[in-house]
Amino acid sequence: MVVIMNTDATNENIQAVVEAIESVGLTAKIMEGAQQKIVGVIGDKRKMSSLAVEAMDGVEQTVAISKSYKLASREFHPANTVVDVDGVKIGDGNVVVMAGPCAVESREQLLEAAKIVKAGGAQFLRGGAYKPRTSPYSFQGLEEKGLEYLAEAREITGLKIVTEVTEVEAVNTVAEYADLLQIGARNMQNFRLLREVGRCNKPVMLKRGLCATIDEWLNAAEYIMNEGNSNVILCERGIRTYETYTRNTLDMSAVAAVKHLSHLPIIVDPSHGTGKWRMVKPMSFAAVAAGADGLIIEVHPNPAKALSDGPQSLTPENYAEVMKGVYKISDLMKKENLFTDYTKD
Amino acid sequence: MVVIMNTDATNENIQAVVEAIESVGLTAKIMEGAQQKIVGVIGDKRKMSSLAVEAMDGVEQTVAISKSYKLASREFHPANTVVDVDGVKIGDGNVVVMAGPCAVESREQLLEAAKIVKAGGAQFLRGGAYKPRTSPYSFQGLEEKGLEYLAEAREITGLKIVTEVTEVEAVNTVAEYADLLQIGARNMQNFRLLREVGRCNKPVMLKRGLCATIDEWLNAAEYIMNEGNSNVILCERGIRTYETYTRNTLDMSAVAAVKHLSHLPIIVDPSHGTGKWRMVKPMSFAAVAAGADGLIIEVHPNPAKALSDGPQSLTPENYAEVMKGVYKISDLMKKENLFTDYTKD
Amino acid sequence: MVVIMNTDATNENIQAVVEAIESVGLTAKIMEGAQQKIVGVIGDKRKMSSLAVEAMDGVEQTVAISKSYKLASREFHPANTVVDVDGVKIGDGNVVVMAGPCAVESREQLLEAAKIVKAGGAQFLRGGAYKPRTSPYSFQGLEEKGLEYLAEAREITGLKIVTEVTEVEAVNTVAEYADLLQIGARNMQNFRLLREVGRCNKPVMLKRGLCATIDEWLNAAEYIMNEGNSNVILCERGIRTYETYTRNTLDMSAVAAVKHLSHLPIIVDPSHGTGKWRMVKPMSFAAVAAGADGLIIEVHPNPAKALSDGPQSLTPENYAEVMKGVYKISDLMKKENLFTDYTKD
Amino acid sequence: MVVIMNTDATNENIQAVVEAIESVGLTAKIMEGAQQKIVGVIGDKRKMSSLAVEAMDGVEQTVAISKSYKLASREFHPANTVVDVDGVKIGDGNVVVMAGPCAVESREQLLEAAKIVKAGGAQFLRGGAYKPRTSPYSFQGLEEKGLEYLAEAREITGLKIVTEVTEVEAVNTVAEYADLLQIGARNMQNFRLLREVGRCNKPVMLKRGLCATIDEWLNAAEYIMNEGNSNVILCERGIRTYETYTRNTLDMSAVAAVKHLSHLPIIVDPSHGTGKWRMVKPMSFAAVAAGADGLIIEVHPNPAKALSDGPQSLTPENYAEVMKGVYKISDLMKKENLFTDYTKD
Repeated sequence: MVVIMNTDATNENIQAVVEAIESVGLTAKIMEGAQQKIVGVIGDKRKMSSLAVEAMDGVEQTVAISKSYKLASREFHPANTVVDVDGVKIGDGNVVVMAGPCAVESREQLLEAAKIVKAGGAQFLRGGAYKPRTSPYSFQGLEEKGLEYLAEAREITGLKIVTEVTEVEAVNTVAEYADLLQIGARNMQNFRLLREVGRCNKPVMLKRGLCATIDEWLNAAEYIMNEGNSNVILCERGIRTYETYTRNTLDMSAVAAVKHLSHLPIIVDPSHGTGKWRMVKPMSFAAVAAGADGLIIEVHPNPAKALSDGPQSLTPENYAEVMKGVYKISDLMKKENLFTDYTKD
Repeated sequence: MVVIMNTDATNENIQAVVEAIESVGLTAKIMEGAQQKIVGVIGDKRKMSSLAVEAMDGVEQTVAISKSYKLASREFHPANTVVDVDGVKIGDGNVVVMAGPCAVESREQLLEAAKIVKAGGAQFLRGGAYKPRTSPYSFQGLEEKGLEYLAEAREITGLKIVTEVTEVEAVNTVAEYADLLQIGARNMQNFRLLREVGRCNKPVMLKRGLCATIDEWLNAAEYIMNEGNSNVILCERGIRTYETYTRNTLDMSAVAAVKHLSHLPIIVDPSHGTGKWRMVKPMSFAAVAAGADGLIIEVHPNPAKALSDGPQSLTPENYAEVMKGVYKISDLMKKENLFTDYTKD
Repeated sequence: MVVIMNTDATNENIQAVVEAIESVGLTAKIMEGAQQKIVGVIGDKRKMSSLAVEAMDGVEQTVAISKSYKLASREFHPANTVVDVDGVKIGDGNVVVMAGPCAVESREQLLEAAKIVKAGGAQFLRGGAYKPRTSPYSFQGLEEKGLEYLAEAREITGLKIVTEVTEVEAVNTVAEYADLLQIGARNMQNFRLLREVGRCNKPVMLKRGLCATIDEWLNAAEYIMNEGNSNVILCERGIRTYETYTRNTLDMSAVAAVKHLSHLPIIVDPSHGTGKWRMVKPMSFAAVAAGADGLIIEVHPNPAKALSDGPQSLTPENYAEVMKGVYKISDLMKKENLFTDYTKD
Repeated sequence: MVVIMNTDATNENIQAVVEAIESVGLTAKIMEGAQQKIVGVIGDKRKMSSLAVEAMDGVEQTVAISKSYKLASREFHPANTVVDVDGVKIGDGNVVVMAGPCAVESREQLLEAAKIVKAGGAQFLRGGAYKPRTSPYSFQGLEEKGLEYLAEAREITGLKIVTEVTEVEAVNTVAEYADLLQIGARNMQNFRLLREVGRCNKPVMLKRGLCATIDEWLNAAEYIMNEGNSNVILCERGIRTYETYTRNTLDMSAVAAVKHLSHLPIIVDPSHGTGKWRMVKPMSFAAVAAGADGLIIEVHPNPAKALSDGPQSLTPENYAEVMKGVYKISDLMKKENLFTDYTKD
């Protein structure tokens, strides 16, 4: 951390800042700038959390330099992490696809969707049994019944199951049925829930919060990893901006940013990221070319009858077309080694 | 809801949309525009939640017209709601002030803060016992011990207690000690938690989410009210924008927007809203002049030693000065009746 | 400026950075952090503009510390600037109000508006003769004819005239008629135009760009001042955020931020800031209580017939009511000295 | 346009709205909703610009349905436009690359850059002779001298020249030297300048404004096209969001959105879009896979010595690597026809 003093800070102000820093066992170094003095702080930044030097007299601002997360950082763990979900590897250079309806609506709908998903070549079936919805009057999911249908679909198709867990009370139940636990965007900073899935022995897919910075997102991963669960996959699903044409603004550059800052795998959700099925194909292709480790896509046997997210769901035909292109681009990426190597630089 | 068709939608496309709408018991009316046809939907919008007409062929977009919340809307309840927190009324035209440290750090710190808060004229003592923090390595609060100190401070000063509840498991415990339960910004869409405090017999202060729209915020209030708890107070605490000079962008206009759309009281948090103690005074004055029902302000006996949010905490002297001005402006507002009457128009 | 090195930067990397800094006549100081080295840069920051150390090997990021504007900064000019517009002072503690229609539509409309504006007590008549519009098919203004009507209105009422100049070619013409030149939000970084009004001997009101940071805004003022024109008034008019209920998000805290960072006067535009006439009254009151030096408000003899911005224009009756309250709050601010003193701290 | 009335609007209110609509030659149709009445407006939307029904009594809000741009819309011109820049075609399915330094700094720097650019396989040399800069103290470009160097580089290499024009006065001069005129992000709504390049017989590349919506961007294109110049290429270069890790947030989905809404070609600028050279490679690949018609990339012989934008400039080696991958992905896109067909649906 660097403490920037006001241009008119007195020597007493600076001395007080130095003493505060030293009082928690850190080292302070004064540097004279052209207009103002700067105090550098050396040592474990976490000790600073018991100080608020920014509130001290003569202090203009403080600038954080080292990151507050550690387990999730590439500095701590230079090699790429490969998460193994019951035999399916995520992060090893192959694109993994998770597909299915937004919500599990009925046994029939889900089994039909599962067959389509399987036929298209995806490895995971997605489908929400617990649905966080803006309005209390919207469909909230089939809950445990939905999980049972997912398990049945797995039995029939061999697909792995990824589904969202929205509350601490449901973690054990969801973990019984799912292969991969999803933490949704709205819960990215539900720290109690993060800790709970961190104590669970299942891999976790952590979606980026609606307006979370990459730093906050990696700190959220740190909450999970700090409980002992290092099998975390990140999922970019669009952020909230002023643009209203798309449902969210898919931050494709987050793929590169996360891979530079962290060793964790990252996948992309072009369905929520755009909110429009027409955009799912080009954005899926873009994600793979950007180096994403996978995709999560909404597919529905009949999008116009979907209980949620119909406008962004692919029909079976569109889905098949997307998958074909995804694997062609993925093959080229591997054959020509078009990946960026983030382990050096 | 209005369904806007593509310019090249066929009659079959339009007929299919009409049939879908009628299949859930709603009425459809076709309107011919200059370039494209529009289908109006008449009836309870909630029935539409089982349709995804936007995914149907020939549909360009859908536009929501009626609101999805009801209990929280001023149309449903034209008169202003006054929330009574154990004798202190919020929403009756008087400004209520909640003040105190961001976090309860120790018995001494809290009791000292409480005396300052009381002396300045506030009615509530604030202080976090459970602290949601971006990093797992930051101070996370004293939990139940902190609640005990808050209760002791109430006994000594007579101040009401407002404190945050961050997880379902803690609702009963926090409700035992607090007079007003706070739902923080990060939990505004923790729907399970909203339902839980909705079943509690304590008033709730619901902070606006970091990037929540006003519509989502009022829908979150609807979750609480729909469980039977209509004692909800909204709190504007700044939204996330591209501007980095302030910690958040305090959306002062939300005071007027909420009062137009809803009957619930609204207070303003200029401390989190700006992140800078220097701005707390002018923004407190502005909030009162805008017609806010109250303020929640961070005050610390020694901000430079605060375990969290020191940079935005007032010293005892600054706090006293803010309070003096707040009550002068509030008196003028009442004397000259400078409030906007939202019950008509 | 502070240069933060990667954790794995080599000594050669650091030496190269030091040499680059010294090559332009600045001094470099190396500071060893716990995880990484930091290089502080001492001397006039503007010399750094010929370097791109961030692109050098081993550099993680650079952090700017001193501000890039000087003439506009309070450090350079601690006392408040008072701009004198032909006898009307802006920035001396009195609230100045500019009111009128968005666009000059006709002689009759303008003269009628001017009488209403005058009667309500404002000092300035506003009205656009050159209108920047999103669509080329929208009404673009009466141009010089509009300026003539404004001049006639001044003659009749004695009001000062503020009107927008949108292009370099029109600066001289507009300056002939107007008392105060307005640079609109869309032109805040039209640097050629800024320079041109900087060479003009008329005061300038500089609106904040739609998504301009406060730093960029003050740099835009610097462009004007650097040409010799120090009579600059800033105008907060709302920024673009994800919230769609209001047309823009009025950043009320910008009043306090600008006054802390700069000596220039700042006024608030609650009409564009919210886009809704219902919000103009409470936001006007809030702006005055926040310490703004003035207001610019849209008033129209018949808002429903306005050629632009009708939804945010006040009727004559609403305007009169707003003005009464504004002056009451302003009187209280002065009588009780509720202003923040930005010249110290 | 659809006019949504308040729930308590009277029959008189509705009648007044209908009369206002009919007074400008449009047709109004009343539709009864469950909670409120709606008035549909039929006819050329542009006639509505002389009304402000939103300001009328009883009106809750208005919703625009048809687009305000026409010449730029795909509805008006279903086939893809191919812009021919002196023999180089943009929009025909081949990826066109424009590369070079941010600013022309010297004859030597530019000629060296041009050779690198040529060798890598790009068709255009980019380089700013007129530089819009946030601070008046930053390097502002070599102006006409810079244009001369660009022309010399063209002569030597055969590359086409794209360079920014920042002011009306310079349009003719820049058009003499350049093959493609660039309108920068800050000038996207400098309507006077848009009109001027619209009257010019050179193709124009229109960058998206820092916080422009896609709708505003296409309206800006409409300003140019409405003057008779239909050779417009759009350029996505990142938008301003709350995320600070990247310089801007590259909105990759804008490629798909623009292609759906408009027939104009669109290229992507990953250098400004991310601000980090490390991200240029993966984002270039993603843009091509998303179906972009081209790329504009910053390359500098020695980024660490660049007078502007060094941190986002590629070294010659990185550039060569990016180009190789870009053409491999582009070849695959063409061979397998992975493009989305926007002319149907």
